Amino acid sequence: MATVEDLGVSAFINILSAFAFLVLFAVLRIQPINDRIYFPKWYITGGRKSPVVCGCGVSRFVNLNLSTYLTFLNWIPGALRMSESEIIHHAGLDSAVYLRIYIIGLKIFVPITVLALLILIPVNVSGGTLLNINRNIMFSDIDKLSISNVSNGSQRFWIHILMAYLFTLWTLYVLYKEYDNVAFMRLHFLASQHRRVDQFTVVVRNVPHVSGHSISESIEQFFQRNHPDHYIGHQAVYNANRFARLVRQKERLQNWLDYNQLKYERHPDKRPTTKGGFLGLCGEKVDAINYYREKISELDEKISYERQRILKDPKAIMPVAFVTFDSRWGAAVCAQTQQSKNPTQWLTKWAPEPRDVYWENLPIPFVSLSIRRLLISILVFLLVFFYMIPIAFVQSLANLEGLERVAPFLRPVIETIPATIGVAIPMKATFFMTYIMLDGWAGIASEILRLKPLVIYHLKNMFIVKTERDREKAMDPGSIDFPENLPSLQLYFLLGLVYAVVTPVLLPFILVFFALAFLVYRHQIINVYNQEYESAGAFWPFVHGRIVVSLLIAQLTLIGLLSTKKAANSTPLLTVLPVFTIWFHRYCKSRFEPAFRKYPLEEAMERDIMERESEPNLNLKAYLADAYLHPIFHSFDDDEEEKVEVRVDKGQSHLSSPSRSEMSTESPPHYVYHYEFEP
Amino acid sequence: MATVEDLGVSAFINILSAFAFLVLFAVLRIQPINDRIYFPKWYITGGRKSPVVCGCGVSRFVNLNLSTYLTFLNWIPGALRMSESEIIHHAGLDSAVYLRIYIIGLKIFVPITVLALLILIPVNVSGGTLLNINRNIMFSDIDKLSISNVSNGSQRFWIHILMAYLFTLWTLYVLYKEYDNVAFMRLHFLASQHRRVDQFTVVVRNVPHVSGHSISESIEQFFQRNHPDHYIGHQAVYNANRFARLVRQKERLQNWLDYNQLKYERHPDKRPTTKGGFLGLCGEKVDAINYYREKISELDEKISYERQRILKDPKAIMPVAFVTFDSRWGAAVCAQTQQSKNPTQWLTKWAPEPRDVYWENLPIPFVSLSIRRLLISILVFLLVFFYMIPIAFVQSLANLEGLERVAPFLRPVIETIPATIGVAIPMKATFFMTYIMLDGWAGIASEILRLKPLVIYHLKNMFIVKTERDREKAMDPGSIDFPENLPSLQLYFLLGLVYAVVTPVLLPFILVFFALAFLVYRHQIINVYNQEYESAGAFWPFVHGRIVVSLLIAQLTLIGLLSTKKAANSTPLLTVLPVFTIWFHRYCKSRFEPAFRKYPLEEAMERDIMERESEPNLNLKAYLADAYLHPIFHSFDDDEEEKVEVRVDKGQSHLSSPSRSEMSTESPPHYVYHYEFEP
Repeated sequence: MATVEDLGVSAFINILSAFAFLVLFAVLRIQPINDRIYFPKWYITGGRKSPVVCGCGVSRFVNLNLSTYLTFLNWIPGALRMSESEIIHHAGLDSAVYLRIYIIGLKIFVPITVLALLILIPVNVSGGTLLNINRNIMFSDIDKLSISNVSNGSQRFWIHILMAYLFTLWTLYVLYKEYDNVAFMRLHFLASQHRRVDQFTVVVRNVPHVSGHSISESIEQFFQRNHPDHYIGHQAVYNANRFARLVRQKERLQNWLDYNQLKYERHPDKRPTTKGGFLGLCGEKVDAINYYREKISELDEKISYERQRILKDPKAIMPVAFVTFDSRWGAAVCAQTQQSKNPTQWLTKWAPEPRDVYWENLPIPFVSLSIRRLLISILVFLLVFFYMIPIAFVQSLANLEGLERVAPFLRPVIETIPATIGVAIPMKATFFMTYIMLDGWAGIASEILRLKPLVIYHLKNMFIVKTERDREKAMDPGSIDFPENLPSLQLYFLLGLVYAVVTPVLLPFILVFFALAFLVYRHQIINVYNQEYESAGAFWPFVHGRIVVSLLIAQLTLIGLLSTKKAANSTPLLTVLPVFTIWFHRYCKSRFEPAFRKYPLEEAMERDIMERESEPNLNLKAYLADAYLHPIFHSFDDDEEEKVEVRVDKGQSHLSSPSRSEMSTESPPHYVYHYEFEP
Repeated sequence: MATVEDLGVSAFINILSAFAFLVLFAVLRIQPINDRIYFPKWYITGGRKSPVVCGCGVSRFVNLNLSTYLTFLNWIPGALRMSESEIIHHAGLDSAVYLRIYIIGLKIFVPITVLALLILIPVNVSGGTLLNINRNIMFSDIDKLSISNVSNGSQRFWIHILMAYLFTLWTLYVLYKEYDNVAFMRLHFLASQHRRVDQFTVVVRNVPHVSGHSISESIEQFFQRNHPDHYIGHQAVYNANRFARLVRQKERLQNWLDYNQLKYERHPDKRPTTKGGFLGLCGEKVDAINYYREKISELDEKISYERQRILKDPKAIMPVAFVTFDSRWGAAVCAQTQQSKNPTQWLTKWAPEPRDVYWENLPIPFVSLSIRRLLISILVFLLVFFYMIPIAFVQSLANLEGLERVAPFLRPVIETIPATIGVAIPMKATFFMTYIMLDGWAGIASEILRLKPLVIYHLKNMFIVKTERDREKAMDPGSIDFPENLPSLQLYFLLGLVYAVVTPVLLPFILVFFALAFLVYRHQIINVYNQEYESAGAFWPFVHGRIVVSLLIAQLTLIGLLSTKKAANSTPLLTVLPVFTIWFHRYCKSRFEPAFRKYPLEEAMERDIMERESEPNLNLKAYLADAYLHPIFHSFDDDEEEKVEVRVDKGQSHLSSPSRSEMSTESPPHYVYHYEFEP
């Protein structure tokens, strides 16, 4: 059976689709009508106001300049032109650090690939077991290039062990350098940042309920007592989840109302109708515009009632607060120390920046969080465990004869389709090569094409957009989806490290992926994505840790493999590797991780002193006053019908001041900010 | 082969020796001559000045009151009479917490033993496989009570699984309660302690070398800048290892000199001689007293030169220091926060109490520490790994026929000796039962007898003791050797948890151990041991962690065992247990561990405020001045020939003040204490 040819077919299909995506992208991106899809970042940064066009009429929508069609890869130099520091300035440190993951991939795997291809493949090919053994067992040509081809107990395995050592040391060296580098970039970035509210703020969770005291009073008392020199005030967190749900519901209804009104404007002869029952699917027909208006006014009442309830009910204030300090030093001290004798109360940590707060989750108590973590880890475990059952089933069908026997009706299908899929599963390296071509080559090429935003934008443009502002709103460039991208990206590290010694022929596929993905994401970061918030590369310890785990898995796999190849005497020699790797990880953790988790007092003090010298009259209280205002209040601010009154509690006496700006002119010792709203 | 009988023989031997030790102890302890061996703690606390005797003459040394010989177990009520809080007061929290480990053993294993004996043994016995299968394989009678007796794939395993769940839940419940309890005891103990220097002190390691600045200047500058409101001063650490070696050498020679002088006093007719060469074994004969006097005076010169070198050489000051603060709050903040941008520099943590400082190890740098840890973990790994080779070899010899074949010359030995040892190894439960009887029963009984101190004390009494003060010195009661006792103690938890489901008949042996050891150590703590320093139970997280690991090993063993018993479908059900156990461990870690590692600011502030109110005129600077004086200076203090002058560096100006007490009357902002010694 000619597996290499099958792999060739798969390669052909995938390279063709990748090529097609790139050509399509090259054509679509130069159409003025798509400008907002492929260059939204420039609209956000103010680099562009409208598509660059020459002429008018059709050429406002379609590019008629034929010469620009000739070079379909000319986005690549553009993607490479920007320097790293320009990228940090343009898109933030998170994006720049994200790109470094691909660089690491290249740094690790280029030398490994060269060594593996030059040394291991000749060693494996000349091993020659598979040429001689029983022909009944099928081996692919790929396997002749792999470690399977070396006869059991051969002395050649010493070369594989040597390579495992070299690869491990090289990977760890690159990881160390990069961790150092990213930690430096982070510290530099943080140091060069302007004053930010989160530098002065600590989030405190699990505030204990003391009978006879409100949460705010407890917080005030606790921090005035334990941080007397630096505490300024705090901002309460409200449990406004029900309120937020109502607001979202209202927005949805508003959308339907807008849609129906638009429909009516376009066809004034026919008033749109809807059904009043469940999901608009059943019930009697009613006038849509009136129906939605009525529903919205009902909701408005509920929202107003709910708002009153939140503001009046002391139970709506959650045992969580944002506590602000008069200096970075004071906040750094509070964030890093244990406050209470009971280690589950008064938990403090750095406040994330305001846009990065997930308000709905703030009120979850400590025990509940722990139990949730337990449930999730049990579920993940069971998922992985039971996932073995379908895998084992598929494995048992993995030769085509078996499949034909189980499902004879599939015979015609099994014989039109190339045998690739059926054989790819047992020969896992082949399977993963195909996977890399599909997900890593064609998938990445489709990423740059942005097919989904393209379709959605044009649909919105056709039906919803009325003004230029609507058009801006219609294009949400989104941001890189770290929670999804990072794990799938790290699968490539796992594959590369596991197969580096076992089936080195897989490595070039991975190299192509890293190079292509690096170019594509660099282009996307420059032209498309707009990071919502900035963590200053705080995710790097996870990236590092996962590559280390991949390396451990690779080492354990090799130990297992060699013991089945009757080279078990190599085990002690190889077990040194995981021990060393774990030690390396611990070393890196203590060496670099504090830079990502803690804020050194030296740095805090330095910036405090600098700031006091350069801006002696800075009113920090005013600056911090509504930094961590619950979004519930922002939604009121937007609503111009609401009249906002700010009431400041100063100790026990209550003063009403007409505007927030006045607050900043006086500076009494300790403030609690309460906002009250009167319709 | 009658293994139960062999076990009986072993039990007989061990119980007999345990009994013999206890009787011997009962006789020896009531002899006035041994009073200092069996009740040294009371001499230290001042509870006794001399043995309680009635009469004189022989009765000063030997107890002639025959009625006291009758009750050889009457130490037990005495050991139980003291309450826990009295023990804390009498012997410190460490000792009280150490005793709680045995209590935990009883709490965990009493209910488990009852359940296992009542339910599992009947289930196993009626399983009845081992009665039917091939007689060529030898099974002991003990195995008929164990899980081995249940036939493969039997439904009875559900009962074992249920028991595994019950045992796990019960163990975790007890562990949780105890952690809570010990954490509370610790907090209570710390809160009730009087002012201690370590509450105000932080040890800082890895102070960076700045060219043009001495270590002391760097430290001064750094803490004045970053902790301006709370920093008082610091005490340098000198690399005096060579000096300490010389002093030890001198002490050894002094001992020889004393010995020879004593010899000469007793036999004035014969002057003692020694040989001048290597170790006193070769070379020509010389007069011993003159020889040692000469050697000592040579050493004195060397010591004096070395002392000068240390005090003059700035390189002798290590990049480590004890930094003191003006409040517990200031020290708590400094100990818990990251100081420097480089996370490997300016590492701070709580200073241990002065007696607990291991001065020789303080100067080891961060990188060197990490590498040492790596080397040790590799060595431990290799030790464990290669330990399998002799074990496997012994296992292969584990039936007597095999042993006879390999080593025919052993035949007579194998046939004179009972077959216990040869059979005990493969039947591991039987082996461990024997082990428990030997180490856990007879071993613990020998602990109370204190044979080694008994012999040494009497030898010293015979040869060295001249005055009453010498007699006091001759009896060093020692302290409980935690580094040795804790791991061997935890082996019993491992055995109990692993065999609880597998071979429940082992459990009563463990119960006897825990009960006996509890009584013996309670007696020893009350009457004998004198803890050198007090960590306030800081070792508890390790005890907890190791019992959890034992539980995990027990669970994994059961999973493996049941899968070989063709009950592999139970695996998913059982794997929930380790996941839950790991989660439990993490929960406990975050819930309780901070109480053992950190000093909450709330507590620090509370005590600071209380102290300021009760002792407004307290001079903390004087109190802290020489708390962490390097032992090198203590040895000078002892030597009354040295004239000590204290020089205080106040900022840049140097004042000489004649005595330390004067220092405390003035209180300038920041002090560095240097001590200079002029012979």
